[in-house]
Amino acid sequence: MKESYVHGYDPRENIRLQDQASTLVDLLHSDTLYPPGSRVLEAGCGVGAQTVTLAGNSPDAIFISVDISEDSVAAARRAVEAAGVTNVNFMRGDIFQLPFEPGSFDHIFVCFVLEHLPRPVEALEILKGYLKGGGTITVIEGDHGSAYFHPASDFARRAIDCQVELQRRSGGNANIGRELYPLLSRAGYLDIRVSPRMVYVDSSRPELVEGFTRKTFTAMIEGVREAALAAGISDQDTFDKGVSALYRTAEADGVFCYTFFKAVAIKG
Amino acid sequence: MKESYVHGYDPRENIRLQDQASTLVDLLHSDTLYPPGSRVLEAGCGVGAQTVTLAGNSPDAIFISVDISEDSVAAARRAVEAAGVTNVNFMRGDIFQLPFEPGSFDHIFVCFVLEHLPRPVEALEILKGYLKGGGTITVIEGDHGSAYFHPASDFARRAIDCQVELQRRSGGNANIGRELYPLLSRAGYLDIRVSPRMVYVDSSRPELVEGFTRKTFTAMIEGVREAALAAGISDQDTFDKGVSALYRTAEADGVFCYTFFKAVAIKG
Repeated sequence: MKESYVHGYDPRENIRLQDQASTLVDLLHSDTLYPPGSRVLEAGCGVGAQTVTLAGNSPDAIFISVDISEDSVAAARRAVEAAGVTNVNFMRGDIFQLPFEPGSFDHIFVCFVLEHLPRPVEALEILKGYLKGGGTITVIEGDHGSAYFHPASDFARRAIDCQVELQRRSGGNANIGRELYPLLSRAGYLDIRVSPRMVYVDSSRPELVEGFTRKTFTAMIEGVREAALAAGISDQDTFDKGVSALYRTAEADGVFCYTFFKAVAIKG
Repeated sequence: MKESYVHGYDPRENIRLQDQASTLVDLLHSDTLYPPGSRVLEAGCGVGAQTVTLAGNSPDAIFISVDISEDSVAAARRAVEAAGVTNVNFMRGDIFQLPFEPGSFDHIFVCFVLEHLPRPVEALEILKGYLKGGGTITVIEGDHGSAYFHPASDFARRAIDCQVELQRRSGGNANIGRELYPLLSRAGYLDIRVSPRMVYVDSSRPELVEGFTRKTFTAMIEGVREAALAAGISDQDTFDKGVSALYRTAEADGVFCYTFFKAVAIKG
């Protein structure tokens, strides 16, 4: 394994592959590739943000992408068509009640879905039923407890915790990423391998400062402002100071860290 | 860059290099290699824990390893001799007052040192003076704020914060890892690249459960028990509950995450 790291004598060249992912899409999805002809269930495709990449990276696999929201399915279908991707079939469906026969799929892909479910282990067990023996499930989730930054700020932490609390009240878990191993284990999957994907942002990576720190993470927290105030989880001044502190981490001397967790496991 | 991630169609094979480091030593040091004949200053070698690996990995470079503690230097010398490594010269010395001419070194290596210094930017500036133009500095630091785990525990967090507070009172910063980019930038280094090295531990990695979660991180926190109680930072019951909660993360369904930061930068 040691050889894998050794790219020569120049320490400048010895930067890890992890650091080379130029976009979040690369970081999360570039190593998910399915063999030609395999049938893959994407459970919870949302508006197709992942579907385009997933199906585009495995053009000879066949994807069935489902979501509980009719509107999301329609949006996903449009996104896939706009991208010229043709190997996806869409349908509306509830993960807990899909109309498939047992063992219908070679592989299953679940991204940013478990975080919203009150019973994630049950969902994983049900999905396992749709897999052929030896088939894989790939699960990707974020973890808001993995966010830390410079300058550190209690206000920023409290603003993030508003989102965590709102999601908890909706039955979800915004800190679920770290739990993928025990969740898959309890659901009976075998040979579970979890691979953390850390997004590290400093001002030498301006596309991530803009694309991740500002427009993805901080914008997401800012987006729960009204809900957090309405629910009495925070007051206006405290919340706004938190959002300002998050934007502060996007300045020239700021640093922002967040980790996604990607797991692959087998149905025995 | 995409090709770097693609190792075939089997999702089981598509696990990242980051996940393949079998030990902490591999994770932190396997990509630090110096060309034959280069002169490398290891500033703050301690008892030689890194020196053996560093010099062993670059057998044809010449290392000058210094530490402020005479006892540590003696221990480091014994460790290197015991390992049969012969390309290290040791001396006692204070980073802020070393007896070298400007531009004496091709490269500098600093590991787990800045976290203890009240003036880390000044230390980096002084070290820069000893580098030749175009030479590199490699800095590695941990960050206790990067620790999170399952099951989550406020008691565990408070026990960790005892160590952070004690280190702060000694003039150090146990959360310095995330700051390497701004620190090196303020010290005038160029082309700074920070590479986080996340240690992810679940029970599929028993050697890390034992070697990192239990015997490295939790043992370190446990080790400040008397100091934390004596300083009145925690009470006995609260601290002991925190340590128990950290050991709990080493059980079969537990997960532990910690990130080290490695930076390489150039003297312009």
